[in-house]
Amino acid sequence: MSFPFFTKARSQKQQLDLIRDELRLVQKQIAAQVTSFEPHVQDYMAQICKAQGKLIRPGLVLLTAGATGGIKPEHITFAAMLELVHMATLVHDDVLDHADTRRDKPTPNALWGNELAVLLGDVMLSHAMVMGTELGDTEFCRMIAQIVRDVCQGEVEQSSRLFDLDMTRADYYELIRKKTASLFAAAMKGAAWISGMPADIVDELNRMGTLLGIAYQIYDDCLDMVGNEHSAGKTLHTDAEKGKLTLPVYFLLESSSDDIAAEVHDAIARREGIDYERISRTNAFQEAISRSVDEGLAQTAAARESLWLLPQTPYRDALVEMTYRLDELLENCRN
Amino acid sequence: MSFPFFTKARSQKQQLDLIRDELRLVQKQIAAQVTSFEPHVQDYMAQICKAQGKLIRPGLVLLTAGATGGIKPEHITFAAMLELVHMATLVHDDVLDHADTRRDKPTPNALWGNELAVLLGDVMLSHAMVMGTELGDTEFCRMIAQIVRDVCQGEVEQSSRLFDLDMTRADYYELIRKKTASLFAAAMKGAAWISGMPADIVDELNRMGTLLGIAYQIYDDCLDMVGNEHSAGKTLHTDAEKGKLTLPVYFLLESSSDDIAAEVHDAIARREGIDYERISRTNAFQEAISRSVDEGLAQTAAARESLWLLPQTPYRDALVEMTYRLDELLENCRN
Repeated sequence: MSFPFFTKARSQKQQLDLIRDELRLVQKQIAAQVTSFEPHVQDYMAQICKAQGKLIRPGLVLLTAGATGGIKPEHITFAAMLELVHMATLVHDDVLDHADTRRDKPTPNALWGNELAVLLGDVMLSHAMVMGTELGDTEFCRMIAQIVRDVCQGEVEQSSRLFDLDMTRADYYELIRKKTASLFAAAMKGAAWISGMPADIVDELNRMGTLLGIAYQIYDDCLDMVGNEHSAGKTLHTDAEKGKLTLPVYFLLESSSDDIAAEVHDAIARREGIDYERISRTNAFQEAISRSVDEGLAQTAAARESLWLLPQTPYRDALVEMTYRLDELLENCRN
Repeated sequence: MSFPFFTKARSQKQQLDLIRDELRLVQKQIAAQVTSFEPHVQDYMAQICKAQGKLIRPGLVLLTAGATGGIKPEHITFAAMLELVHMATLVHDDVLDHADTRRDKPTPNALWGNELAVLLGDVMLSHAMVMGTELGDTEFCRMIAQIVRDVCQGEVEQSSRLFDLDMTRADYYELIRKKTASLFAAAMKGAAWISGMPADIVDELNRMGTLLGIAYQIYDDCLDMVGNEHSAGKTLHTDAEKGKLTLPVYFLLESSSDDIAAEVHDAIARREGIDYERISRTNAFQEAISRSVDEGLAQTAAARESLWLLPQTPYRDALVEMTYRLDELLENCRN
């Protein structure tokens, strides 16, 4: 078992140790969901639930829970539920991207075809909603349903605006807020809500989760440009090819090198991928990545501000560490 | 505007007139949902929401509401929500079936590709869940989430057991109970719950909805075998080809004509479609359809029993008529 998002943190405060047992409980609870399904669905679910990822969202839930009074059983269920929503979106993403592997394992669509993968994603989403109704009142259920809707709407917007040069950088931020940051925000907001925190703290942690999610997506977008496929464990360099306008692409379009800006603009206007091999060797490329990293760092810095509202605990410290870990990942993209 | 499920009823009690205005309100409310979505999702939703179908589930909600004390605004919202769930499953079905048209209109996958169609279906499902949280307590939300999960699990089971001769007739019934009857059951159960009926009435109407949904699916399965594509407005004769074991197929497998039984068995075992042209001209085929129709009629007869629990009202009479209309549709399959 590894949680790479935690384990390589800059400082050695071992924030993972703090929630190691609880993360195991989350993993167990995800695996235990398999029995809630009909016999003919269980085998598929068992296999899907085996391929658990970095558990960033559950980690955020647990650290926030610890920092707002202590981790309760409801936090474990909530963490498992959010991870299930995240896994469902990955199942559908892999269908859409025709991806054969994820985390070095065959994807559901590769194993069983697109049909079953779409339907299994639906089962996972609806099961997550059932779990949500066991956690709180209708307002809480509504929050969860709205988050799922936000994530899906963000994905629709992304798919429908490929190669769309009318999409502004503000649109990009709004898109990733929905697609990625809404689950991060939900993790922190929901955990604080379950802890019974007052509304101003819940709102502040919602804001922090949003900032962290946006920073994480910026990192992911930079990684697609500069990362190593082997160490990332997934296919890279495909965003620009597919016409996704990510932050580094915006900075290429605004590059002080007019040639590069024009080349990237024309490639997108022709609905073609940019010549990644060539562009990635230019100074304009380094500059675009660097400006993206700076924007990511601004988000994490703002995210850290929120944490001073909470009393000092090892959990709050671990949340601070988590933001620094993200800074480190962002900085690594500059080379 | 037409509601074919209602308009050709055997008797002329004009049960449609009873809820015509309210069905219009449901249609308006479905159309009004478009504004709840993000700007870039609205255009797609507007087009999807235009293609409204027979409104059987909303009709069941409204008639049950009328028969249990009167139609309230919550019933209209609930009816719109259930239809949205149904529409979302159709959007995903059309992706899986590579269907280009439905109700004589191009499908979302035909218009915008599989990617967007999958994601738009997800948005619709999650939006329906948001609507659900505006209707009742967490128990009600859980019921809705469980129904959506049942529908999706039924679809998974169907997709994963194509050409599966180990699937029994009991498995078939359980599959269609989940895939189709759970939404019919939810319509009646939920409407009675919103009306504030006691638990025994809610349970009885749940049972009735299940029977009606099973009968409806049997009718749909027979229609696929004997129907006319033009009047049905959809592609037919494809179930057996795709390996779906429907009730008429089970009766062909059990046919007293050993030749036919063996031929159908072997075709399925080889994962091939049966020779529809030839088989459909045999007595064994007529017999299989007829036995299926009989089973459908047994379900509607049992469904009618439940209605005597309710006081006599024009709405209860219309529900009785609806079951007879289904009988008529089933009988028409015999020729």
